[in-house]
Amino acid sequence: MIEAKKKSESEHKHIVGILVEDQPGVLTKLSGLFARRGFNIDTIIVGKTAIPLVSHIVISLYGGDRTLEQLEKQLNKLVDVVKIIDLNPERSVVREHCLVKVASSAKMREDLVNISKLHKANALDLGKDSMVIEIVGKPEKIDNFLSLMKKYGIKEVSRTGINAMQRASNGK
Amino acid sequence: MIEAKKKSESEHKHIVGILVEDQPGVLTKLSGLFARRGFNIDTIIVGKTAIPLVSHIVISLYGGDRTLEQLEKQLNKLVDVVKIIDLNPERSVVREHCLVKVASSAKMREDLVNISKLHKANALDLGKDSMVIEIVGKPEKIDNFLSLMKKYGIKEVSRTGINAMQRASNGK
Repeated sequence: MIEAKKKSESEHKHIVGILVEDQPGVLTKLSGLFARRGFNIDTIIVGKTAIPLVSHIVISLYGGDRTLEQLEKQLNKLVDVVKIIDLNPERSVVREHCLVKVASSAKMREDLVNISKLHKANALDLGKDSMVIEIVGKPEKIDNFLSLMKKYGIKEVSRTGINAMQRASNGK
Repeated sequence: MIEAKKKSESEHKHIVGILVEDQPGVLTKLSGLFARRGFNIDTIIVGKTAIPLVSHIVISLYGGDRTLEQLEKQLNKLVDVVKIIDLNPERSVVREHCLVKVASSAKMREDLVNISKLHKANALDLGKDSMVIEIVGKPEKIDNFLSLMKKYGIKEVSRTGINAMQRASNGK
């Protein structure tokens, strides 16, 4: 989402991990950089790490391989950036967390709970005419689950965007 | 993390949901607003919704109640903002997703898999000397799990930050 898109023939999805120091304005600097360079950010998460005052950012974006090289060069110039990690989907665990509020009459509730179980989703909260379901997995799995939920009536969706990490089985 | 902090006596954690149109520069505008106003962003996620060209942002931040009012007024002035939702933790489901890479010799592996099961965490990927574990839950649950993992040796952590939604049982 959010930033202007540069079209090119070989565009595909990239995932980048960035370790940053918790300094005022880091997020503004980063998103300003993306906007100026025309990078098309799809999702972004910013969370804590095990190291005090260091945060971990995961960005997924569309672009060619040159786009990614440019991005890395630009990021390396930002003093607050500690480390950049290429989270190539073929060598990384790629996951997403999603909360969805679905319309559910008392009659439909059992149906929905069963479908959720089948997809290893979790009914977190039940209301009179809706329920909140949590699902975790590959982004495509979440897309599929949300498609299934459409016929019941989706009231709200909140997806984290991509969280990713280099696989342990690659020796990283 | 990331933005300058204004200390006040009654500071506590707020969670805000923001629906925005997918226009170039929205994230830059938002984070610029936070930086200028001195809001202290703790975590942020930006994900897709069920509505094309509309993204959902969840921000957790520390501040007094007046801070939140100010924030909402400022956000309402941004044309790309469609809707602002107060995700008060007492009336919302509050969750987080975490990937952690833990050092694990062959000897330790069974131990780690068992501890993970006990905490409903999930060993996603096994390597020669480390494994990637996924855990989902309230942020405090993730804090606790990471404390337990410390003695094995944490190599990497990637947390999404807070994902939240108003409870269905509130009739929302």
